[in-house]
Amino acid sequence: MQTDVQIAQSAHIKHIDQIAEKMGISPDKLEHYGKYKAKINPQDAFRLPEKKGKLILVTAINPTPAGEGKTTVTIGLTDALNHIGKQAIVAMREPSLGPVFGIKGGAAGGGYAQVLPMEDINLHFTGDFHAISAANNLLAAVLDNHIYQGNTLNIDPKRVIWRRVVDMNDRQLRHIINGLGKPTDGVMRPDGFDITVASEVMAIFCLANDLMDLKERLGKILVAYTFDNQPIYARDLKVNGAMAALLKDAIKPNLVQTIEGSPAFVHGGPFANIAHGCNSVLATKLAQHLGEYAVTEAGFGADLGAEKFCDIKSRLANLKPDCAVVVATVRALKYNGGVEKTNLNTENVNAVKQGLPNLLKHINNLKTGFRLPVVVAINRFVSDSDAELAEIQAACNAVGAEVSLTEVWGKGGKGGEDLARKVVAAVESSTNQFQFAYDENDSIINKINAIAQKIYGATGVELSAEATAEIANLERLGLDKLPICMAKTQYSLSDNATLLGCPTDFTIHVRGITVSAGAGFIVALCGAMMKMPGLPKSPAAEKIDVDANGVISGLF
Amino acid sequence: MQTDVQIAQSAHIKHIDQIAEKMGISPDKLEHYGKYKAKINPQDAFRLPEKKGKLILVTAINPTPAGEGKTTVTIGLTDALNHIGKQAIVAMREPSLGPVFGIKGGAAGGGYAQVLPMEDINLHFTGDFHAISAANNLLAAVLDNHIYQGNTLNIDPKRVIWRRVVDMNDRQLRHIINGLGKPTDGVMRPDGFDITVASEVMAIFCLANDLMDLKERLGKILVAYTFDNQPIYARDLKVNGAMAALLKDAIKPNLVQTIEGSPAFVHGGPFANIAHGCNSVLATKLAQHLGEYAVTEAGFGADLGAEKFCDIKSRLANLKPDCAVVVATVRALKYNGGVEKTNLNTENVNAVKQGLPNLLKHINNLKTGFRLPVVVAINRFVSDSDAELAEIQAACNAVGAEVSLTEVWGKGGKGGEDLARKVVAAVESSTNQFQFAYDENDSIINKINAIAQKIYGATGVELSAEATAEIANLERLGLDKLPICMAKTQYSLSDNATLLGCPTDFTIHVRGITVSAGAGFIVALCGAMMKMPGLPKSPAAEKIDVDANGVISGLF
Repeated sequence: MQTDVQIAQSAHIKHIDQIAEKMGISPDKLEHYGKYKAKINPQDAFRLPEKKGKLILVTAINPTPAGEGKTTVTIGLTDALNHIGKQAIVAMREPSLGPVFGIKGGAAGGGYAQVLPMEDINLHFTGDFHAISAANNLLAAVLDNHIYQGNTLNIDPKRVIWRRVVDMNDRQLRHIINGLGKPTDGVMRPDGFDITVASEVMAIFCLANDLMDLKERLGKILVAYTFDNQPIYARDLKVNGAMAALLKDAIKPNLVQTIEGSPAFVHGGPFANIAHGCNSVLATKLAQHLGEYAVTEAGFGADLGAEKFCDIKSRLANLKPDCAVVVATVRALKYNGGVEKTNLNTENVNAVKQGLPNLLKHINNLKTGFRLPVVVAINRFVSDSDAELAEIQAACNAVGAEVSLTEVWGKGGKGGEDLARKVVAAVESSTNQFQFAYDENDSIINKINAIAQKIYGATGVELSAEATAEIANLERLGLDKLPICMAKTQYSLSDNATLLGCPTDFTIHVRGITVSAGAGFIVALCGAMMKMPGLPKSPAAEKIDVDANGVISGLF
Repeated sequence: MQTDVQIAQSAHIKHIDQIAEKMGISPDKLEHYGKYKAKINPQDAFRLPEKKGKLILVTAINPTPAGEGKTTVTIGLTDALNHIGKQAIVAMREPSLGPVFGIKGGAAGGGYAQVLPMEDINLHFTGDFHAISAANNLLAAVLDNHIYQGNTLNIDPKRVIWRRVVDMNDRQLRHIINGLGKPTDGVMRPDGFDITVASEVMAIFCLANDLMDLKERLGKILVAYTFDNQPIYARDLKVNGAMAALLKDAIKPNLVQTIEGSPAFVHGGPFANIAHGCNSVLATKLAQHLGEYAVTEAGFGADLGAEKFCDIKSRLANLKPDCAVVVATVRALKYNGGVEKTNLNTENVNAVKQGLPNLLKHINNLKTGFRLPVVVAINRFVSDSDAELAEIQAACNAVGAEVSLTEVWGKGGKGGEDLARKVVAAVESSTNQFQFAYDENDSIINKINAIAQKIYGATGVELSAEATAEIANLERLGLDKLPICMAKTQYSLSDNATLLGCPTDFTIHVRGITVSAGAGFIVALCGAMMKMPGLPKSPAAEKIDVDANGVISGLF
């Protein structure tokens, strides 16, 4: 069987000018990065005739080790919509460099539903993440320099919140002490690095409406407290102009193509736990502006990704999704039904039945919580039996959701035509009634409760003393009227990764509260969130190579 | 008076295709980065007809706070050569991002002798330095991961040589302890960050002949020692393939243009103290392949930059420079003659006379040490008096060096036509007799002595006990037959920054020896070399801004 990189390298890739022309963009409006990648100045693109494209959100059941293929379906659905005569554009996240060298591999789809050139997209791409790292680290350097140069702002070195980042899986940097050495080598303090995608600059980048909005939001980042407990924002260090200057090109969405030549905006990629986990607002809006259908995805399962897509991204950017596609696999439902990973290829209708409540809960959340039409996409495997599929079909139909079997991994858009038709039917047969799960002007605890009870099915919420104190602090700072970003395990609807299916009678434990004041959301930490991954014992980096012609091998 | 960025922004910039066509490169062979920047695949370019261009090295007297304008002359001379009918291409270094936010400002020339688009060149450019940072930090992450995951190579965590890098002036990171936190957060050890341009990956990048040579050299990096004193190289960690994959695009030279539309390869930029301080070998060779004249520069004064250009870069890459241009100013010579910085605008023929021995020593080194024809370029200021200029003229002519007064800052290539004619005359009237200052197969101490005595004018060399021990270690490892990279102050011919002019009766003190085994040179440390700058009290970052149209201001 061919690997993803082999399929990608043998695909017929078109010049990016041809892809742009499909959307009515003249090639001289592109900023080329070689022949197959380009940036588009959104100011230019938004002047083109507006298509007011329907916004399709691809989400999934809670992720399992069996794999669901959400990105693959997102890309395949886009190709399929183009197959059936709709002009569709996909908007998706850029992969992070760090995991490419670990175990995760790339994040550009799979099989015949990939975006190209996949090697470039997985390695640096157009440099956006490096620009974000530089902006993040400039703020850190200026902050520490301020303390070192006399500290007129009276910053407490032990209350610096802002951390440095690197786009690498590097556990060694999680906890450090810096400023060691001589008196001229800075001020000693505890510190640490996160991976770039966990930077608030990334979240801001993905929520900004334009460059000036970006600059203003960067200025609002809460970076530290003074010795007398006053907040210090990035604007107090006069650094947000230079940070925005570093991001002036990165903020322009990247245009690439799917294997089948559909336009793809691949732009931004924040963490889906401590941030909202969606591609940039600009990419989504451009896809809607230039296409009849804009297909996009959210991170993790629908409890985290779709909820944040609706309550954070859509709220802050004034988006109204028209339909949700929930991706599942027979194997993943069996896993949710209690089957071990090694036995997932054996037919087990009862296990499917046991796992279905997870899928049904997500469908219900999307339909009643956010009032979105829902289509279920079952990413088909050869091991799936007809009886298992029938079980899913019946259960979903009973709650008013269409089900489509897709084979986009193996067949590209052709394998998703049924899904595309069902999505179009769902969109065309309803008017947009999209709503949020809560009012952002409600109290922090009420907002968390709304998500926990309505979306997760929890009986209630327990706050640690630390979380309670920080809520009071955010109220003091006037930073409480913001949407909530829940940081909890992606593997369960609860905050306990081992509770699969659709757990009941559980409480959500909020251990900590932080604010991303520039991005514009409050983070509720339900467990220890890893913001800097590590490499495995045999990192993928050992297998990745390049030949004399620049051809990459071993990417995954 | 207009600032550099204002002059740059009001210049008429041509599409990069037009610049490429001047060199016979068809636009479809370019990898565009927007309209004004492109990368060129050297494999393609070297297949074009060979021009065997003359190689002109621009160097300078020892730098002073008065400023000499070496980069400006390098660019202006290229434009001037094109003015007088020679096809000339400039090859120069890329600026580092860190200093842009500190005090140094950009490094893309000045006045009417700049490379464009200067904002982009100063901010990220085509991402080469970010790729170098990523390759450097991947090696670090894999190394620490190896120790953490069982350490089968038996690496001593206290003998890890390899440091992480960031392209930022960030003193806070000079000395750190990392691997703190829980047992799963790595292995605690002393560590630190350098700025990206100080990375050995940067030096390797600039010395590699092609991508495969790059990969092999990356594998040779000495990164640590085992508990039983055995060397560990990057190849032992199986990471040089992935590092080369990260650099597959970066290694392709960047093409931009001067304000007057001359082709400019701006590529790579290693430190000039602990590394050799020249743009990439590929850029220099491309400029020679495609132009009748290739104009390039070396870092700092001729004692460091030109010496390393000859003895390291030219030796390792088989280059033979045809002529050296030594840049000086009347003000800088007066400074060397003992005048305070505040009094440099007052005529003082005697001070010029006192400072001239510095210039004359560099001329002599280039003529007799490396057997290069020498032309002196006096970068003219309005305060220069005729009597002062006549003094310089007479002294240089007496030792067989032509002198030209240049006004390229204010007049562009027009202001350098006399210099261009004198360079052409010098090249055409002589055959290339270029030679090195020492034999690389000589002992380390003999090689250091040769540089110290022949080039610096020292009476001898004193080694610390540490340096002596490391020389024995390099002999043990078979790493002693490499050229020497002297890391000493740039402000004096000696290792004492306060000894201006042409000091005599001094000893060079070698405090330490290190090896850049991948780059292929031995570093002799004569003093504490700063590998991570800090920001000043009021960093330039505070003034840098961007407007809604992406126009940068306050760059310098």
